[in-house]
Amino acid sequence: MKKVGVAILGLGVVGGGTYRILDSHREEYKRNHKVDISVECVLERRKERAIELGISEDKIYNNIAEICSNPEVDIVVEVMGGVEPAKTFVLAALNAGKSVVTSNKEMFCKYSYELEKAARKNHCGLFYEATCVGGVPVIRSLLDNLQGNRITSMMGIINGTTNYILTKMSTEGASYDEVLKEAQRLGYAEANPSADVEGYDAAYKLSILSSLAFHTKIPYTKIYREGISGISVEDINYAKRLGYAVKLLAIGKNGDSGIDVRVHPAFIKQTHPLASVNDSYNAVYITGDSVEDVMLYGRGAGALPTGSAIVGDIIYCATHTSFQYSPFDNTENAAPGTKFVENFESAYYIRLNVMDRAGVLAKVSSIFSRCGISVAQMVQEEVTVPGENIPQIFITHKTKEHSVRKAEQEINALTGVASVGSIIRVVN
Amino acid sequence: MKKVGVAILGLGVVGGGTYRILDSHREEYKRNHKVDISVECVLERRKERAIELGISEDKIYNNIAEICSNPEVDIVVEVMGGVEPAKTFVLAALNAGKSVVTSNKEMFCKYSYELEKAARKNHCGLFYEATCVGGVPVIRSLLDNLQGNRITSMMGIINGTTNYILTKMSTEGASYDEVLKEAQRLGYAEANPSADVEGYDAAYKLSILSSLAFHTKIPYTKIYREGISGISVEDINYAKRLGYAVKLLAIGKNGDSGIDVRVHPAFIKQTHPLASVNDSYNAVYITGDSVEDVMLYGRGAGALPTGSAIVGDIIYCATHTSFQYSPFDNTENAAPGTKFVENFESAYYIRLNVMDRAGVLAKVSSIFSRCGISVAQMVQEEVTVPGENIPQIFITHKTKEHSVRKAEQEINALTGVASVGSIIRVVN
Repeated sequence: MKKVGVAILGLGVVGGGTYRILDSHREEYKRNHKVDISVECVLERRKERAIELGISEDKIYNNIAEICSNPEVDIVVEVMGGVEPAKTFVLAALNAGKSVVTSNKEMFCKYSYELEKAARKNHCGLFYEATCVGGVPVIRSLLDNLQGNRITSMMGIINGTTNYILTKMSTEGASYDEVLKEAQRLGYAEANPSADVEGYDAAYKLSILSSLAFHTKIPYTKIYREGISGISVEDINYAKRLGYAVKLLAIGKNGDSGIDVRVHPAFIKQTHPLASVNDSYNAVYITGDSVEDVMLYGRGAGALPTGSAIVGDIIYCATHTSFQYSPFDNTENAAPGTKFVENFESAYYIRLNVMDRAGVLAKVSSIFSRCGISVAQMVQEEVTVPGENIPQIFITHKTKEHSVRKAEQEINALTGVASVGSIIRVVN
Repeated sequence: MKKVGVAILGLGVVGGGTYRILDSHREEYKRNHKVDISVECVLERRKERAIELGISEDKIYNNIAEICSNPEVDIVVEVMGGVEPAKTFVLAALNAGKSVVTSNKEMFCKYSYELEKAARKNHCGLFYEATCVGGVPVIRSLLDNLQGNRITSMMGIINGTTNYILTKMSTEGASYDEVLKEAQRLGYAEANPSADVEGYDAAYKLSILSSLAFHTKIPYTKIYREGISGISVEDINYAKRLGYAVKLLAIGKNGDSGIDVRVHPAFIKQTHPLASVNDSYNAVYITGDSVEDVMLYGRGAGALPTGSAIVGDIIYCATHTSFQYSPFDNTENAAPGTKFVENFESAYYIRLNVMDRAGVLAKVSSIFSRCGISVAQMVQEEVTVPGENIPQIFITHKTKEHSVRKAEQEINALTGVASVGSIIRVVN
């Protein structure tokens, strides 16, 4: 029987999950695929972690050179995260003729052009299903199944931490700060949560997914990014009342005016399939010119779901002799002439805190009108405590981002308006 | 640039869709995949249909031998449907060294063991993503992404016609017969609708999907099958009242007691993601020991969605040099010793029409108790017209199919019971 040796770089959450899956299913993979996949060695400084997983001491290596020179190792699994030393290790493995499976979205998003070049040169596989949306089969669906399509739109809930926080805020009415603290206590959010809550993680993934979907390099630096730390329970409650859920969406559109890629919180109609993707579940909703709408849904993170994606890649790599690479020109920057939409179009939810005096609505309305913004829906609460500010809620028709920013400035300067409470995009 | 020639057998709905996609995206595929995919010829008796699609007369062939002997043809797309002559044509193509892409679930389900043998022998690809759930990437997800998992359960809404009918019955309160007629008028149901409404189509697909999921041959003859023609609006209304939707589900489970495969209508909790899969949308909900839950959702049928799956397979075939086959022993019958569960376990919805007299509930309850059936929920309507029969609704806890059938017999023999209105399984 064909033997395939695996080295795992890093025994964190995902590395541990991957080891456990490979170890406990080895006989099944032999039976189903006529291939014996064994973990030959691991790279991990914390010996006790490796031993706790049942890995014998002689398999715990200290440096990448030993792994690269081990002829029993065919596939290197990189699950360390971060750019360095992960990138150096992956390049070393590829240059030593080992195929690589990675879950590292930051490294892959920033350096896939360099990694793929090395993989091609050395005729190695480079697999990255686990970089995006855990165990949900979105990379391979884009790479294989949906290639017949011109994909026009992609909308995803692709960060588990923020979806957990927004779900809890919605179901428990707790504030962002409270829920974030609870999430950190439970291990769902990092001590420094900014990669998740400020949308960087989602932007890395969107860069990988949209490059595949639109067949052109989309560097993450081209992605408009806005996190969820400004979302208040008040906004979530208005969303519910108006028939929406609030989600951190990763959006990619490819239309006549160019490529429009962004990560930001958004109101989405409660009837949209993405609106009921809750807790740490993730989903990607893809629209193509042939397939129409497809949604892929599941656990976006976690030891075993992400391990499932990694092991799927390992088995694929172990049972195939030719590998495929990006079906687009994978360069460092976007191809010259690629048009990115900056002044994108969206509907908007705008919440103002206005003073309880006559004429404010007229002034706000005339600003909207001057900026070319047409209002679709408006809510103004009754005054309960005389003299207190009153929330005024607008949902606009589709308009341009820049028009809304201009209106925001002008409204901020109005004497009758205490503050612009929040501006959140509305998608359908 | 590499050239790949395609022949399409049959220009029905799916064949026409496939042609249109290939024709309109040819330049994109050249750019993205460095391969020029052209339709070299078609097999279609209705010349006018081919010409209407823009296919020149010299490309319209009359027999499979001409296609097999055409050296420009690399891939044969079989979209004729039915077992014969499709199977003979596919075998001829494989034996002539052509790879095959098919959407024909009946042929593939019944004869994949024979077709795969020919494909292996001739080193050809045999692709069948389009046999199940239209453009939704379920076959490749099972073949590649989820191979790291022991899949324990699979539940799907995998027939568009029945889901359309049940959705309309639910939203419009119309009867099965009325909605079926409308569906036939709109072309959503065939003149002879039995393949869809009696669950054969879903059983063919479940056979293909569950064999892949459970790594063992599951012939469709082993699948318990029950259609939707017995579903009444009354049952759908009770379902809604009790928090359920009624769907035709294809269910596969692989547990300690064996393999449990069935297609039947079922109550499913409104909060389950499958419950909101409506109209002609389809979805498959898969549970694995690593990935946890994954749902794949989209258009389960139609010219372009199914064409999308076919063209995805064509591009894969055109850009790969080695092909994969079933990761299980693909024989005609189930492997000796495979255990199939006949007396499966489920919760049940039972609707009785009882006469308005004392003691009926006591008698029914004592039958349930004797049969080991425990009731979880019960509804009895107030008598509105004295002397008329009254519906009595039970939702049971999980119990055995055979116990329910035994209870049904005994209840039918009770003098106070006019009829057993319906028995529908309840899944969670």
